[in-house]
Amino acid sequence: MSSIEVKGENLIGGFSRRGLNGVVRVNNPSSGELLPGEFGGASEQDLEEAANLAAEAFTTYRETSLERRAKFLKLIAQNIAELDDKLIERCIAESGLPRARVEGECARTVYQLQLFADVVSEGSFLGVRIDPSMPDRKPLPRPDIRTRNIALGPVAVFGASNFPLAVSVAGNDTASALAAGCPVVVKAHSAHPGTSELVGRAIQKAVEVCDLPPGVFALLFDPGYAIGQSLVAHEAIAAVGFTGSRAGGEALMKIAAARKRPIPVFAEMSAVNPVIIFPNALATRGATIGRAFASALTLGVGQFCTNPGLVVAVEGKGLSEFLSGASETLSTTSPAPMLTSGIHSAYCKGVDRLRSHQAVRLVAEGAAGNGAFARAALFKTTAEAFLFDRGLQDEIFGPVSLVVAAKDWAEVKRVLQSLEGQLTTALHVDPVDYDRARDLLSHLETLAGRLIINGFGTGVEVGHAIVHGGPYPATSDGRTSSIGSLAIERFLRPVAYQDFPVELQPQAIQNDNPLKLKSRQNGFLS
Amino acid sequence: MSSIEVKGENLIGGFSRRGLNGVVRVNNPSSGELLPGEFGGASEQDLEEAANLAAEAFTTYRETSLERRAKFLKLIAQNIAELDDKLIERCIAESGLPRARVEGECARTVYQLQLFADVVSEGSFLGVRIDPSMPDRKPLPRPDIRTRNIALGPVAVFGASNFPLAVSVAGNDTASALAAGCPVVVKAHSAHPGTSELVGRAIQKAVEVCDLPPGVFALLFDPGYAIGQSLVAHEAIAAVGFTGSRAGGEALMKIAAARKRPIPVFAEMSAVNPVIIFPNALATRGATIGRAFASALTLGVGQFCTNPGLVVAVEGKGLSEFLSGASETLSTTSPAPMLTSGIHSAYCKGVDRLRSHQAVRLVAEGAAGNGAFARAALFKTTAEAFLFDRGLQDEIFGPVSLVVAAKDWAEVKRVLQSLEGQLTTALHVDPVDYDRARDLLSHLETLAGRLIINGFGTGVEVGHAIVHGGPYPATSDGRTSSIGSLAIERFLRPVAYQDFPVELQPQAIQNDNPLKLKSRQNGFLS
Repeated sequence: MSSIEVKGENLIGGFSRRGLNGVVRVNNPSSGELLPGEFGGASEQDLEEAANLAAEAFTTYRETSLERRAKFLKLIAQNIAELDDKLIERCIAESGLPRARVEGECARTVYQLQLFADVVSEGSFLGVRIDPSMPDRKPLPRPDIRTRNIALGPVAVFGASNFPLAVSVAGNDTASALAAGCPVVVKAHSAHPGTSELVGRAIQKAVEVCDLPPGVFALLFDPGYAIGQSLVAHEAIAAVGFTGSRAGGEALMKIAAARKRPIPVFAEMSAVNPVIIFPNALATRGATIGRAFASALTLGVGQFCTNPGLVVAVEGKGLSEFLSGASETLSTTSPAPMLTSGIHSAYCKGVDRLRSHQAVRLVAEGAAGNGAFARAALFKTTAEAFLFDRGLQDEIFGPVSLVVAAKDWAEVKRVLQSLEGQLTTALHVDPVDYDRARDLLSHLETLAGRLIINGFGTGVEVGHAIVHGGPYPATSDGRTSSIGSLAIERFLRPVAYQDFPVELQPQAIQNDNPLKLKSRQNGFLS
Repeated sequence: MSSIEVKGENLIGGFSRRGLNGVVRVNNPSSGELLPGEFGGASEQDLEEAANLAAEAFTTYRETSLERRAKFLKLIAQNIAELDDKLIERCIAESGLPRARVEGECARTVYQLQLFADVVSEGSFLGVRIDPSMPDRKPLPRPDIRTRNIALGPVAVFGASNFPLAVSVAGNDTASALAAGCPVVVKAHSAHPGTSELVGRAIQKAVEVCDLPPGVFALLFDPGYAIGQSLVAHEAIAAVGFTGSRAGGEALMKIAAARKRPIPVFAEMSAVNPVIIFPNALATRGATIGRAFASALTLGVGQFCTNPGLVVAVEGKGLSEFLSGASETLSTTSPAPMLTSGIHSAYCKGVDRLRSHQAVRLVAEGAAGNGAFARAALFKTTAEAFLFDRGLQDEIFGPVSLVVAAKDWAEVKRVLQSLEGQLTTALHVDPVDYDRARDLLSHLETLAGRLIINGFGTGVEVGHAIVHGGPYPATSDGRTSSIGSLAIERFLRPVAYQDFPVELQPQAIQNDNPLKLKSRQNGFLS
């Protein structure tokens, strides 16, 4: 078993040391008991050191060979896998998530790192383009221009509470930034500090074994917001990866935009992920869809960015059957602990807001629970009320959803037109509904980053084609994905080399192609 | 000859009509005479109409077939070419640029549109990725996920004064946005309103002939800043392309960031494009480099974003020879008119600032001129003074450059370390200098978007490998290029389709590949 232990220390420059700026402690959300471990908060000076070391490491790290960088990512994956039960148990204790889910998430985290190792080895992220010289061109000769992508610079990463492994210290943002050649400074999420430290130490160990500059990775604890904010404002930081609330993401965007040198913030923030049930599907299998929907809604205590928080359909017998099916499944749902008491109380507040809304009625509830245990809930309103009160489309993080019943299909379309940007949209259709679906798709494509037929957005497949993104406020920049191999593009920028002698060319753009890269020659893929 | 004429009208929704919100008029910068034509400024209502029509057109236009969109871009190119002398002469009169330059720029504008027509036809900008389903995967089956890029939405374009054709109404931003499938609303530059209208009408005619929705293109005149600012703030606008001053770009960035739904601004703003002369090159051919430098500096009256406004080298005999060579060429440079009297007075102010700086001395000047004619100038300072006063690295737009003499090579490096982001950096080297160059390249890659060996940044080659971009403040976002085929990526976003039946799939992602596109299958290029 791994020798890595939780010590409550920040990880900076290859060392670990106790922070003296306040303390992060954490409760077990299942039992309420205080977990062992006190995590000393980083000071501004700690941050300064971590950021400057990252800037220093950048020069070397961004030019590591593809082979070496891929090996590094694989070693991180291996070190995390070797943490085994030590990590799984700490993560269960800190998150309240069930073992199977945490084990699955750990496997996904390991897979994600391996995927990026493959992306690095394959090398096409370097985006090589070569327009050879044309010395005889008239009226002027054409110079030789060759382009490759280089890493953007040190990246600040803010993990999510709801994926303490796959979207945290060694999660999607860290994996894609390290793959691109960017050092990473992580602000540890205060909901899972022990998990963060274990994973952070697994990365730090890989940095050391691969003999990389120690500034390639740092992990900082912050009992409040000040260190995270200073990190985004720090001159050495070139980009930010964030997954969390809209308020949190927007706060970081403001800091990044107000810098002397503004930097991009890739924030994944807020979505209600509408589920649209088309007339024929609703008429023929409303109850079945309702049961599947309630399962998706309560999966992981509804704590997914892609949770189906909104259902849109036309009022009628089919919708009644959908509601019956959903209610049936929902009422058998046991309460389960939410990630933190803060998340739980925000959930209760959101549910109470719906409960007391005069145009909204409660359809079904799960069993009640104690402490930070969430009671699932399903509400219903009319399209008219929904269109009138924009507050009804705000995300409530947790196992609650709002069914919007429209008078007719035209009203369904008006509801969809009124929505803000989303991560996902699910369409439940039968072949008879295809014409209607085709007619809507044009709008839905501009609404969300991922469209799903006869399924739900929950369950993000880590791969090459996945898009985990979407128009504002689903993310701060819909032109990217935060999950899957596309994510590496966020942390790269192109550099052109004009009339460079081969002695000064980086390997990626050399004619004899020592890295065996695919490239574009005069615009054509070779 | 083309039937298109200057009428002083805004172009909105397939119609042209006189704006009633103030008037734009323009002088011939060569003669000072007022040119014919009064261009009525657009009102907020005109803007509202143009933006809403663009949003309406977006739905149809973004799904035009690749063939039809390529044909549209080629027709714009043809319509511009057919404007012929009518356009060339108006452009010469409005810009003061010599005929050969304007003809060359017109050819570049036409070529640029054709290049993007080719990019559209080739289709790989659609970025198709397919991860097929794996129904037997354990523990869960893998869904079928297919991704393509779609257009971002209507784009606001602000052209540059210094390229009234190639970086204006039908310039790089417009060509790449239209290629991506985005409607365009152009705020006409007030320095060349007649040129803008002629080109705008050429686009409008192509929209009509291709039977595209009229909202695909609009052109608005604005005697002040209000309409341009409202355009960036308008809900229908999804991105902004801008080339101009740092103050202008930063003002638009602030508006875009403060929107309810922030949007990306691709602003190309400010650079001094350092020229580094390495010791051996300086010792063996200082005078020759000096002469070539002075020619590059005064080309187009120094009115290029890539103008070499800074030279860095070690003090000594070689640098004296460089200065002699440069002075010799500079002193034979005739004064030439700048684009506008405003640009000329800003230039004079900048030159006076250097002239009266106690640590800066004048090395050489071109012949003096009248009116808006610029007198080229070369100044010299020490590395010590340059490092002390950061104001010395601010761009002065026009034919002026500052030579920074360092005590030794270490000081050259300190000067380069102190610089802000740049569009280009030129290295003058002989093979003996290669080790020194190699040592510096790592920093220079993070400093600029394009590096040039033994040449100068002036002259941007429109192609596939070109990068016209660079770290802040050269541009607002160094991850992109505003010129060349890479520019299309600014206006696209990926959408994933999960478990879509073929009947609902867009053609780009269908298995039988009717568009004959290259794609990534499980990450591998097919």
